Amino acid sequence: MHGVTRNSLIPRELRQQIRTGAIQGQTSGMAPGFVQANLAILPKDWADDFLAFCHVNPKSCPVIGMTQPGDPFLPLLGEEIDLRSDLPGYYVWENGVRVQETTDVSSLWRDDLVGFAIGCSFSFEHALMDAGIRLRHIEEGRNVAIFRSNIPCAPAGRFQGPMVVSMRSMTPADAIRAIQICTRFPNVHGAPVHFGDPAAIGIADLNKPDYGDVVEIRPGEVPVFWACGVTPQAVLQTSKPPFCITHAPGSMLITDLRISEISLF
Amino acid sequence: MHGVTRNSLIPRELRQQIRTGAIQGQTSGMAPGFVQANLAILPKDWADDFLAFCHVNPKSCPVIGMTQPGDPFLPLLGEEIDLRSDLPGYYVWENGVRVQETTDVSSLWRDDLVGFAIGCSFSFEHALMDAGIRLRHIEEGRNVAIFRSNIPCAPAGRFQGPMVVSMRSMTPADAIRAIQICTRFPNVHGAPVHFGDPAAIGIADLNKPDYGDVVEIRPGEVPVFWACGVTPQAVLQTSKPPFCITHAPGSMLITDLRISEISLF
Repeated sequence: MHGVTRNSLIPRELRQQIRTGAIQGQTSGMAPGFVQANLAILPKDWADDFLAFCHVNPKSCPVIGMTQPGDPFLPLLGEEIDLRSDLPGYYVWENGVRVQETTDVSSLWRDDLVGFAIGCSFSFEHALMDAGIRLRHIEEGRNVAIFRSNIPCAPAGRFQGPMVVSMRSMTPADAIRAIQICTRFPNVHGAPVHFGDPAAIGIADLNKPDYGDVVEIRPGEVPVFWACGVTPQAVLQTSKPPFCITHAPGSMLITDLRISEISLF
Repeated sequence: MHGVTRNSLIPRELRQQIRTGAIQGQTSGMAPGFVQANLAILPKDWADDFLAFCHVNPKSCPVIGMTQPGDPFLPLLGEEIDLRSDLPGYYVWENGVRVQETTDVSSLWRDDLVGFAIGCSFSFEHALMDAGIRLRHIEEGRNVAIFRSNIPCAPAGRFQGPMVVSMRSMTPADAIRAIQICTRFPNVHGAPVHFGDPAAIGIADLNKPDYGDVVEIRPGEVPVFWACGVTPQAVLQTSKPPFCITHAPGSMLITDLRISEISLF
């Protein structure tokens, strides 16, 4: 990287390196101040139901971009964004079963596919750190811990399932400040949905995340849970569309949109 | 009351009944939507230090009104407000020791006394209930539970001491919403300062409040703590001015100011 850290690269340069495979893995902590997005790609005959599902579940599935059928580009989020190659990792699903993990889905593209970009909580992490809130997973270069909760999503069409949540551990005082800060960003999941007792939302063991990495909870800290854009993956497993593509958890689309552009106030 | 509940009386009528003694005790739940205030009255030669103390402790001591020396009126908070008689209960202090509890301090008034009205968290309780958050102490007609914490206030002049906090018990989801709502009202203590483990802020037993009433914490709930305008009383006990007057905890000044007028956004 010739003395340039990944964090100082602008989104376009990061996407170029992701496209070539020079950058792989999860994107937490990259491009601070820019919006990152989850991805769901569905055939047109499932896309309408999915949009309806997102509409009634804005906390977990805030849609910030959507393509026309067969169009893999999202110019409103970044001039040259190509959803087929610009994320570091993809999951391919058939009938609700994950059949492939890959770094490029160009060979799988079809004329009837519709891409959805869904706001990701990585987007506000820089704002939290800027307020002096330490985020252990970023300091340790890891992904957040992600869990399937027992909070039901509102069903829509053929889609239903549980809310998936991301967890960050912090002191109560930092959690209060984080709630205030994240309230400004509803398009990237906004304020948390829960803190404290994980069993209250159906999480049995914080040391066994369903996705992402284990994150330590130190004395004096509480786990704080945000609605997560991995929710569509849990829902797709239940609803079983014949074919779809998602991002691999933590491997997000880095957009040109600044977090300050989507701040509510 | 001839079919009129206290809650439907406007602030001026409530103050009139308080002045005559027809209404006594604590004011939580009265005049929903109007700002309530804590009271501190000090001799002029201590008032400057006290204002400095409030200035550096805006979370616990947000000054919303201040009189000229010898003047007991606060027309900006209510045309005919008389600080000597318009609160249901007063404490009188000498050298940091409480020497009297009374419902009228007119006979104690002096030409050098300066009155401070400090925003009270009762002011936002209606906004919380309006959002569907149940407040047990109001449903049970009691005062909030109030505790001396070990959070140090910033010292100023001759004043120093611990922050006093009020406690309300609610689910984590309601606490998150309460943090959002209260953030709009910094002049009446704003967002909480802590939630969860009471020992983390030096509270040994939630069943033994230092002021106010015991409030039950039910399964699935967490205690949520707000900075409280009783803080000056804890500070006065430490700093020992020769003479001062405060409200009795929970017996507040009900002002004509609407909570919507002081909302930050």
